[in-house]
Amino acid sequence: MSDINRAARLKARPSGMLTRENFDIADEALAEPGDGQFRVRISHISLDPAMRGWVNDAKSYVPPVGLGEVMRAIAVGTVEASRHPKFRDGDTVTGLFGVQRFAISDGAGVIKVDTSKAPPERWIGGLGMPGMTAYFGLHEVAVPNPGETVVVSAASGAVGSIVGQIAKIMGCRAVGIAGGPEKCAYVTDELGFDACVDYKGGSLRDDLVAACPDGIDVLFENVGGEIHDTCLSLMNFRGRVAICGLISAYNSKTPVPGPFNYRSILVNRLNVRGFIVFDFISQYPQAAKHLGEWHAAGKLNIREDVRDGGVDAFPDVLNLLYTSGNFGKLVLKV
Amino acid sequence: MSDINRAARLKARPSGMLTRENFDIADEALAEPGDGQFRVRISHISLDPAMRGWVNDAKSYVPPVGLGEVMRAIAVGTVEASRHPKFRDGDTVTGLFGVQRFAISDGAGVIKVDTSKAPPERWIGGLGMPGMTAYFGLHEVAVPNPGETVVVSAASGAVGSIVGQIAKIMGCRAVGIAGGPEKCAYVTDELGFDACVDYKGGSLRDDLVAACPDGIDVLFENVGGEIHDTCLSLMNFRGRVAICGLISAYNSKTPVPGPFNYRSILVNRLNVRGFIVFDFISQYPQAAKHLGEWHAAGKLNIREDVRDGGVDAFPDVLNLLYTSGNFGKLVLKV
Repeated sequence: MSDINRAARLKARPSGMLTRENFDIADEALAEPGDGQFRVRISHISLDPAMRGWVNDAKSYVPPVGLGEVMRAIAVGTVEASRHPKFRDGDTVTGLFGVQRFAISDGAGVIKVDTSKAPPERWIGGLGMPGMTAYFGLHEVAVPNPGETVVVSAASGAVGSIVGQIAKIMGCRAVGIAGGPEKCAYVTDELGFDACVDYKGGSLRDDLVAACPDGIDVLFENVGGEIHDTCLSLMNFRGRVAICGLISAYNSKTPVPGPFNYRSILVNRLNVRGFIVFDFISQYPQAAKHLGEWHAAGKLNIREDVRDGGVDAFPDVLNLLYTSGNFGKLVLKV
Repeated sequence: MSDINRAARLKARPSGMLTRENFDIADEALAEPGDGQFRVRISHISLDPAMRGWVNDAKSYVPPVGLGEVMRAIAVGTVEASRHPKFRDGDTVTGLFGVQRFAISDGAGVIKVDTSKAPPERWIGGLGMPGMTAYFGLHEVAVPNPGETVVVSAASGAVGSIVGQIAKIMGCRAVGIAGGPEKCAYVTDELGFDACVDYKGGSLRDDLVAACPDGIDVLFENVGGEIHDTCLSLMNFRGRVAICGLISAYNSKTPVPGPFNYRSILVNRLNVRGFIVFDFISQYPQAAKHLGEWHAAGKLNIREDVRDGGVDAFPDVLNLLYTSGNFGKLVLKV
């Protein structure tokens, strides 16, 4: 790889799925860090469902990526040419480095990671933001009690796979929802969930009823749409719903109706809360500590789906998330 | 009035609006109270939106009214023929006495009220369950802070009218939504809300934006449908939504979609909670004390819409709730 940067910059806002045409992907001169800065040679870029929302020109929890700007992305890489007192050449770091080969950083929001404990790509997956998202969604938002039934959609994905495993650590019954028999077998046999329902199986509601003989106490929602709607109808009295993502609607060109079972919120006195991992920044160290301990103790089974193709492959690889084409945390290798 | 009972018993479950044909309304022999019981000569029956749900054969927060049973209703009346140690002939009492002229009670859930402080019908309205519903929805569910904007739908109704007045007592900006200029003028000029939006005015969203220059912090929802959907889109970060009722959907014969702005729960990190007044039974005395004090101090403007016609008029009068035909707490005089 030559020492020249290559970056994906937003050219036009997409309608529906984003495509190669929404980005300028081109070589750029390698920038030199100034005082208090360093350069990161990026090895892996995290591809996350929220990225689709970041390119909409709409009010959301972060400002949209501007036209001409490098596409926002969490990534992991190695520090070089450091002129920053706290980061040394050779450090492996994670941060919002963008979809490119090299980033200049002043260290804001950058975290050093220990590659002797887990490979770089895991620090932007199960041990990074997705893992912490799962952690906070259970420990701070939904707060299941031991013995309760926790259902999570996209159960084989980056967040969902950790949700079920933490739910088991918390003494709950963990039930996943995933697409296809292969993913479902992975969720139960490798991740240790108590059950997994195949939403492509044609009998979602009946299968959920069978998998949750005592109803649903906690729903950790990543998907939305029909899956969410069906789960709402099966919630127990005083159930809690943590809305982490609604990926099924992110690419829709027309307004998407909310759940037909919305009235379940009233009838069952549900508590429905939206959250994102950034809401809990002050508690990241606590989450990282627990995730690290569970990982070291062999209690967290984490799977990445690492794709080749570098920066040029970004739009196509990202879209795997919205077509259920990935299996495990989706990562783009640079 | 002759001393013979007349009762409305559920004959057939309705599809859509309930009608006279869903009930057997007939004379019945006057029952005599047994030991530990008393008879109530009912003067006023409370007509509440939830009643439509009580006749569906579906899981809800209370069991459905059974076929052949007297229609469930809160009512107020005078004790007679008492054989109960705690209730004396002449006491005015409220309770779940049903849609009939006379009820037999063992005192469970029955509350004595003081007609020197307010007329009987007010004790099943602003000082009864509707008033307490407003109280708990604000004090226990949504919990607005001083200076925040509280929006309530059905603002001229039994619950909504009290919500806005309590919100003002709590130091909030109170914004109502009601149907038609007459009700809106009542909400602002007589109840003292800061603003009221006419949902029939044809520009609901623009009018809400104008009435809530700082957005919506707390939404107290009684109606649902388009009104709820529009409010969701205007919620502030970490807003709270108390779902008290979704009356716009109660008579629908087909499934009703949830709000198109459901994603606002995630983006704005809303907390959406369903509740009913029965959830707070242990705190009724506290609510009653506060409501009584505010009423005595002239801080609660309460309006009843008392209709004649007795038990026979029950289905037609109840339906006024679902067609916005009432103005103030709807009460049927026996």
